[in-house]
Parts: sequence; structure tokens; C-alpha cells
Amino acid sequence: MLVRTDLALEMKEDIETNEPIKGVHVSTKNNGDTDILETRIVVENEEGAMNLGKPVGTYITLESEHLRERDESFHKPMSKVLSKVIKNFIGNKKKIMVAGLGNREVTPDALGPYVIDNLYVTRHLLKEGIIKHSVEISAIAPGVMAQTGMESLTVLQALTKEIKPQLLIVIDALAARQSDRLNKTIQLADTGISPGSGVGNHRNAINKDNIGIPVIAIGVPTVISVPTIVNDAMDAMAEAMGKYGPKNVLKKFNDEEKYRLACELVNPYFEKMFVTPKDIDEAVKRISYTISEAINEACLA
Amino acid sequence: MLVRTDLALEMKEDIETNEPIKGVHVSTKNNGDTDILETRIVVENEEGAMNLGKPVGTYITLESEHLRERDESFHKPMSKVLSKVIKNFIGNKKKIMVAGLGNREVTPDALGPYVIDNLYVTRHLLKEGIIKHSVEISAIAPGVMAQTGMESLTVLQALTKEIKPQLLIVIDALAARQSDRLNKTIQLADTGISPGSGVGNHRNAINKDNIGIPVIAIGVPTVISVPTIVNDAMDAMAEAMGKYGPKNVLKKFNDEEKYRLACELVNPYFEKMFVTPKDIDEAVKRISYTISEAINEACLA
Amino acid sequence: MLVRTDLALEMKEDIETNEPIKGVHVSTKNNGDTDILETRIVVENEEGAMNLGKPVGTYITLESEHLRERDESFHKPMSKVLSKVIKNFIGNKKKIMVAGLGNREVTPDALGPYVIDNLYVTRHLLKEGIIKHSVEISAIAPGVMAQTGMESLTVLQALTKEIKPQLLIVIDALAARQSDRLNKTIQLADTGISPGSGVGNHRNAINKDNIGIPVIAIGVPTVISVPTIVNDAMDAMAEAMGKYGPKNVLKKFNDEEKYRLACELVNPYFEKMFVTPKDIDEAVKRISYTISEAINEACLA
Amino acid sequence: MLVRTDLALEMKEDIETNEPIKGVHVSTKNNGDTDILETRIVVENEEGAMNLGKPVGTYITLESEHLRERDESFHKPMSKVLSKVIKNFIGNKKKIMVAGLGNREVTPDALGPYVIDNLYVTRHLLKEGIIKHSVEISAIAPGVMAQTGMESLTVLQALTKEIKPQLLIVIDALAARQSDRLNKTIQLADTGISPGSGVGNHRNAINKDNIGIPVIAIGVPTVISVPTIVNDAMDAMAEAMGKYGPKNVLKKFNDEEKYRLACELVNPYFEKMFVTPKDIDEAVKRISYTISEAINEACLA
Repeated sequence: MLVRTDLALEMKEDIETNEPIKGVHVSTKNNGDTDILETRIVVENEEGAMNLGKPVGTYITLESEHLRERDESFHKPMSKVLSKVIKNFIGNKKKIMVAGLGNREVTPDALGPYVIDNLYVTRHLLKEGIIKHSVEISAIAPGVMAQTGMESLTVLQALTKEIKPQLLIVIDALAARQSDRLNKTIQLADTGISPGSGVGNHRNAINKDNIGIPVIAIGVPTVISVPTIVNDAMDAMAEAMGKYGPKNVLKKFNDEEKYRLACELVNPYFEKMFVTPKDIDEAVKRISYTISEAINEACLA
Repeated sequence: MLVRTDLALEMKEDIETNEPIKGVHVSTKNNGDTDILETRIVVENEEGAMNLGKPVGTYITLESEHLRERDESFHKPMSKVLSKVIKNFIGNKKKIMVAGLGNREVTPDALGPYVIDNLYVTRHLLKEGIIKHSVEISAIAPGVMAQTGMESLTVLQALTKEIKPQLLIVIDALAARQSDRLNKTIQLADTGISPGSGVGNHRNAINKDNIGIPVIAIGVPTVISVPTIVNDAMDAMAEAMGKYGPKNVLKKFNDEEKYRLACELVNPYFEKMFVTPKDIDEAVKRISYTISEAINEACLA
Repeated sequence: MLVRTDLALEMKEDIETNEPIKGVHVSTKNNGDTDILETRIVVENEEGAMNLGKPVGTYITLESEHLRERDESFHKPMSKVLSKVIKNFIGNKKKIMVAGLGNREVTPDALGPYVIDNLYVTRHLLKEGIIKHSVEISAIAPGVMAQTGMESLTVLQALTKEIKPQLLIVIDALAARQSDRLNKTIQLADTGISPGSGVGNHRNAINKDNIGIPVIAIGVPTVISVPTIVNDAMDAMAEAMGKYGPKNVLKKFNDEEKYRLACELVNPYFEKMFVTPKDIDEAVKRISYTISEAINEACLA
Repeated sequence: MLVRTDLALEMKEDIETNEPIKGVHVSTKNNGDTDILETRIVVENEEGAMNLGKPVGTYITLESEHLRERDESFHKPMSKVLSKVIKNFIGNKKKIMVAGLGNREVTPDALGPYVIDNLYVTRHLLKEGIIKHSVEISAIAPGVMAQTGMESLTVLQALTKEIKPQLLIVIDALAARQSDRLNKTIQLADTGISPGSGVGNHRNAINKDNIGIPVIAIGVPTVISVPTIVNDAMDAMAEAMGKYGPKNVLKKFNDEEKYRLACELVNPYFEKMFVTPKDIDEAVKRISYTISEAINEACLA
């Protein structure tokens, strides 16, 4: 299927039905007195995976209007909630590697590398006996294929074989379908990262199958793909033009066909482009800091 | 009028006619044995300005397929041609200020600041008597309003009053309408920079009227606006659907009305977004270097 | 006199006496339950200025072992104390400009520009009516002379004339004499910044006399000058060698003569060099964040 | 032995003798009409290694006054000569990995990562069939231990096992003894990189023994260690003070004892510091570009 979003939450929303999706369990909760909405989507079996279009596993989405804002005080509660969720995934594992995917030089793709910049790594301190009794944290920003000539997956396979962590946490910038989810949503998944549109295409599935240890993926949507925007505009246009317009024509297409049409309508060069907000620099800096703090706290506190 | 492009060349192309546009003179030339196409658009009077939608003045566009490529050897000839054009604009002026507009932290908007990084400034060396007989070059990256609280125009008005250059060269990232012009087109204009869509909106007209000295603008399109893409898709869709579709409906709209429709069709949040290629980091680094070298050579050789 | 330190505190320590220095008043206090030591040096008159080698005014030094550490929780209290001190200097002024001096591309000199990156500027929001009743903050990183061809003073004179703030806050990296003061000391002074060794020499006195409005300087020592280190080693060597050594010879020199000797002993190329810790990147990032937060709170809370 | 320099050339100069050093062969040549002096030091056997203090192998030093200058035209010839030397080392190997050691965030240590930024990598293009018949180039900036918790050696061992190149080229910033060698000397060695002072201590011997394939090291001295400077000042002081001074005392020490003394004379904190020129940002940017171009040409032309 053509990927329009990296968010399980949006894939669920795409399925226009009020009935439960077979093999998929969805629950939501509020977090205390914060405004943070937590949606938990569990894809229970292969039937669910087929229905949702996402591998079997657990997807947790944290959403907060405030994540997009500058005020540091709004980032603390998100960091706390995120830390708790990460801690649950970690359990009692004692050796963790964190990988910040993406291209440090392209602002909306720099989320992963920026998280690594603020992480508190401990592996060398433990090896040298400077600290004791801490969880072992190592970290890497593997770069992107255009810079290294290597898939991120390949770099991580090599390093995990050598360092032998019990858990890999990967951070990546994602693509969303809805513009108002950008920079205010954090998705955690225990399925790793499946190849998607994202910002770049620096990814071959980084998951337990390929790496050999559990892989937790933390992602934030920072871009939208161009065909997504055209698709939405097409819908709006059909709606607006009513009976004089293409509504009846478009009706004949299902979602995937419509998306394919959108892809064909735009210049093929656009496949290599992305859409991102003008204030993306601040957003990425702030959110990467929120994620670093959450990982630091989950691992070390 | 709603701005869809910062390129005079594209505004000319928008006017679908084979007859000359009144008050606008267009000529093209090839540059020796290079592949660089030079288009010179002279807006001769207010009638021309009305017709083209650009202020009276001269707009020179240099285009080369190769500007998008990595190979350094393709950048040398562009740098040479650009240098000659800049030298013509400079004439015998001896005191020049160069301003690199845009946000260093947002990749496609970093063109201006990057050009400043590689410039050979001389003002302090002349003042201290370290060098003699050189053109006086000063340079500034004024930042963007969200970082400084000040319009770029305001910063440049203040500095030109103090430093008293005879000419201001401003560098900025531009918006184009056609994706295949991104990162392979350089526009020079003696009209300064008019407020436009660009990457950010960090601009109030920086021109002779507001600054008091001639202003040359050098720009490279690095982004496309979201409504532009939707507009193009709308056209393609109307075409594709033929008689069953909205072609006849769309026919009733003129270009501006159609663009307005495109704006309405997309989420208002998209107004604050831009579309840019995935390899934008390399493109901006290379082209900024080409421009720095051209200015260095035009001023100092 | 040859400047070995930008810290008033160290200049006071250089004067080896237990008696009070005429015209200079020194007091210290602890800050609540923090480990932050606050030293207040008031140079009361020209006699004091002669004796201390610093202009008339108030110098406040905040010192904390913890400022050098990674743990974010140690930075909060420093930020709070600093905020209070800044607030005292601001009083009821309503229009403030903040200038981050230094070279963004040289790690220990990037303190000023980094502070600007995290500042909450309001001038444009007030102008556009988006917010009301706030203190007006504008900000600029004027760059260094080698990049701009202009003194920082010149850029700031031009901008304050145009923007008309009531107060200028300048941030800069400083040079210290003692290595164990680096990255754990913050100095505030209401005298502005006098030309000093610092990291670069991007400074002509930025003070009330030259700018026309009160100037508060906030500085952190991030480097040591090379002759300072040689001077200290000379002293240590003289001490170590005792009667066989140069102690008696060195005794004949006063402090300034000894420093001059140190300068002569080192290669003249070293005058253009600086000494800085290997972990300077983290230190500068963290402290710049502490200062941004303190200014944000002092201005906006 | 305490390391004062990473340059074989300076270690040879330290040996004050006019007679040839046993087991070490030294030759120099000029490069055509350039000002580039090439010194070739061959450590022929273990005796030579003992005498010089460097492992058996070939060390080539390229020196040019002009490398420190801005003018791009001076960098071209160095790039050409360097390219030829690299090509000789490469021979007919077809799979090469390039590693840029050091900390991107600390200016004088960023040489390695900057070289990677401008490299033309081909591994993925060959894999995808986009290009053919080219040498396979992959590249990595492994970061420093404080950021990753892993030795650079460990990261490179893991990656070479996975990617299986036939040759590893490592780039690193070096420490020199003489300030006037900084930023104008390039050293190539077929011995890899031995643990040294450098800027950081991010290195365990990266060589054929540890990696399993030939390792070529390319380094540029960008810093001087603090004890080196004190040592030189001590010598100068002893000289200056003549018979009244410590000359006779210092005479009793050999070079290593004197260096140890210098280390003791300076604050232990200085061991973690380095000395670097104020214009280091430009120097590192320019030289990294020269090296990238040389590698690109050596591999691809």
C-alpha cells in the first residue's frame, strides 16, 4: 500500500467505521491533570495487521496542543509521561542502545540526531569504573544513506552485534497525514520502524526480526508528503464543486486509488519533496530536548 | 496579486501570449560553451510593471541543469558568469554591503547566511591599513524576525545609515512555481527584494526607496508554496477528467481566482508551510558557495 | 595594563593585600540553600577604578561548582538567582535589546549567539498586536569583525539608534586567569564590556558612553590566554627550583613585568591563540541555556 | 613516552643529531612549481620505531604556507598533490571506507566529520545500480566517546566487519608541538592512528592489527597541548636568563624529564585543555574541503 502516514492513529482514523476493527484494540486515557491524551492501539494478530496496515504490536500516541509551544513549562509534563511509557517498554533491561535516525543537516529530519546530542550516555563511564550500578546507555546517529553509502539498518546491525545491547531505541522524524498533528504528537511503538515515507528514505525495517533484539521506535511527525496534500485538496474541491464537479467521479475511487491519482497529478519530482512548517527549527529543537530528557529519566532515575 | 513565484521569469511565462508584453523587454543569450541560459527581463515603465506584476527594473535569470549537481567543476562556470553579471551591476562603486537574509536554522532558508560565511570581507582590513586599494566589503546576516524581533529591513536601514555603503547586495532564498527550477536557477535584480512568499516572511521591501542606495538582489528558488502545488494538481485533475470533470467549471476562473481557490482548498495551517526537496542541504551548501565565490571575484578581482 | 582576566573578582584577588582596597567595596553572600556564592564588587570612584583596573560600577559574580555539570537540576537554581540579579538591573525599563557577541563557529566564543537562539523575543509580537503589556525584547547576534568587517560596537550603535531600547544587555564569552573558574562562573556588570582579551578581539568598549543607554554585560569565562598559563608556570617553576632557580630573579619583576616577560617567552603567534577545555561544547550549550532562561524570566515573569 | 606531537616530522626534529637515525629513512621533495614541501619518513624496522617513537611504516608530510590562507586558488594545488599521494596508498583497491573521527561540536576537532560532509559516497549508488564501474566508497563519522559511549575503534571494527572494505581511510585532527605548523601541514601515514593527545582522547589504535585491513590516516594539526607551550616557554626563559637563571638547572634534565616537569608545573586541569588559534573555524572548514576533494579525486578520477 502507498504510505500516507507513519502514525497508527491516523491509519485507524482512515478506516471509516464505527465498529471495532477486528484484531485491533484501541483505548484512550488522560494523564492526570495534564492535557496529554494517550491513545493505545494494540494490533493483536495478523488479521489486525491486515486491517490496520501496521505490523502486530503496541502503538502509543501522546498528543498535546502545548508541545508545539515555546514555553518550557509545557514540556516538563510531556517529558514525564513519555518517560513513564518508555520505562514500561524497558522493563528490567540493563543494556540499551539509542539510535537517532535522520539527516542532521535537514531541519525536519534532524530530530533523531538532536536527541542523541542531549542524551546522557554511560557505557564508557561504566567500562572505566567511573560510575557503577547504572543502566548501560550507548548512542549513535548513523547518518543517512546519501552521506554514508550505508542503510541505517546495516549500521545498526553491525553495532548491535558488537555492543550487544538488550534493547534498541530508535528515534526518527515521521510523516503525518494531518497538518495539525505535526510537532505535537509523539508515537511509541514496540514494532520498530517499518519503511515509510518519513522525511528521507533512509530506512529498511529496523525491527526485532532484522536486529535480533526488541526495538522501540519513538517518532514525531514533522513533515507531510506532497501527494497527501493534493489528495486532501482534491477531496475539498470535489466537495466544494458539488453536483457541477468531480464529486461523483471521485466517488468511484477508493482511498488508495484516489491517493494514486494524487501521485500522478503531481510532478514526479515532488515524490522527492516534503512539506514542513516554517517554524520547524524551534519545534524540532524543543521536542528533541523533551525526548532526550524522557529517555534520560526512564533509564537513569 | 497573490504571489506564487518570486521569479520574474515565471511571471512572464504565466502570461500566456506570443505577443510581446507592453513595457517589458525580454532577451536571452547562451554563455559561450557553457550550458548556462541567461534571460534578461527589463521592466521598462509602470505599464510593464502592471503587466508583469514586478517593479520597474532589470531581472536576470541564470539557469543551468548542472547547478543541482554535486560536481564542483559545474559550479565554476556558473560562478564566472554570475560574477560578470554582478560586476556590471556594481560598476565603479567602492563601498559595498552584503546582507544574507533568512534563517540559518531552517535548511532551505539558510542560503543567505551561508553566503555570508564564505565571503571575503575587507572593511576592517582597510580601516586598519592591513590592505589597501580594495573595494570595501562589509557583511551581515540580520537573522529573522522570530529570532530578533526586528524586520530585516529595519536592521539594514540602521546599518547602512551607519556604514554608508554605496550599494547593498541582498541574498535570499526564493519561492518558485515550477519544481524543476528549484536549486538550478539564480535570479539577479536591481529592484531589491519585494515582499513575497519566500521561505519565511522576514521581509519588508528592501529596495532603493527604503534604503536610500541601489539594492541588488540575488536569489535562488529553494521552496514552492503549498497552494502552488494544489493549484497545479487542480489543473492536471481538470485536464485528466475531461468532459466528466471540472474542466468546464475551472475554465470560468482566471489564474488569480484559481489560486485563491487552491488557497481555500488547503488547510489554513498550510499557509505557514513550504515544500522543499529532500536533498536541500547539499543543494543550499553548494549554491551558496557558488554565489560567495562570484561576489568575491566581482568585488576583488 | 595588559589584561589577563575579564573577571573583576580575579583582578581583586591579584591585589595581594588583606586591607580593603580604597574606592572598592567587596561583599559576598550565599543564596539560600543553593551552593551559589555571590560576590559583589562595587568600584565606587576613579580611585577605586585605578586600584582595581576596572571602570566605576558594580560587578556581581555568581559561582557554582555545579554549573559545570550536566545535570539539568543544578542549572535551575543558578537560572533563578541570575534572573533575580538581572531583574534588579532592569528595574522598570520596558524596552530591552539583547546582543549575543562572539563567533558562532568557534565553540568557546559561541556563548553569546547561543543565548540569542533560546531567547523569547517580543518586539514584533507587540508591534503586530499579537501580545500586549509585555516588556519589549529585541535581540541580535552581530557576528565578529572577521565575518562582517564591522566592530560589534558599530553594529550595536546603529541598531540602538534605530530601535531605541532603554537598556542593552550584552552577552559574551570571557577570559579568566584561573582554569578552575572556566564554565562555572557568571559575571554581571553595569559597566558594559571593556576591550579585553576574551576569545576573539571583537570588541570596542560597549558601554553607556558609546551606546547612550545603560549597558549590562553578562559574561562567562570559557578560555584562558596563553601568556597567563606561561606566567603561572613560570611562578610554579621559580617556586619549585628554590634557591638554585630563578626565584630571586623573578622577584625583581612586578606582576605586569612578569606578564610581559611571559608574552615575550611565547611565540608571537600564540597571542592569536586561546586555551579551552575539551568538553567546551557541552559547557557552552548548557550555560547559554541557563542564561537565556534567566533573561526570559527576568523580562517576562 | 609522553606524547607532545602527533607529527612524525616533529618527532624526527626532536632528535637533535645531524647523523641519520638508524632504521629511519628521510627524504624530501618539492612538488613541481607549487610551494608544497613533501617529507617522506620511512620507519623501516623496530629499531627505527624505537628511535623515532612511531610505529613501523611510511609517514608523508605535506606543508604549505598557503594552506592557512583563504584564497581558494592555493587549495587546488594542495588538493592535487594530496590526491596523488592518496592514490598511491589506495593502489587498485576497489572498496574503501572513510571515517571522520572527532567531535563535530568542538571546532578544532571537527575536521574529520567535516571531511565526511563533502565526500562523494558511492556504495548505495552501486548497490542500486545507479552507477557502475566506480570504486565503492562508504563513510562514517563515528562521533566521540562522550556522545556515544563507544570507542571510535569499536564502531569501526563493527562497521568494517559488516561492510568488508579493503581499505580504511581515517581523518583526524592532530596535536603539534610547533604553533606555526597548525593548519598548514597534512600528514598521511599507512600505520593508522596511534593513541595520542590530539584534541580529544577519542582513540584506541585504529590500525591494521585492530581492524584487519590496511588503514591510512590523514591528519592535520589544529591544536597544541598546554604542557608543550609551557615546556617551550621554560626553554626560552632559561635561555633568556642566562647565567643568572635556571639554564644550568634545566640542562640536567633530558627532553622527557623537562616535559614531565612542564606537566607538573601546570594545573592538572590543563591536561584536559587544548590551545588553538582564534581563526580556527575558517581554517578547519577550508582544509576539510581540500581533503574531501583530494579523496574524491583519488577514488573516482
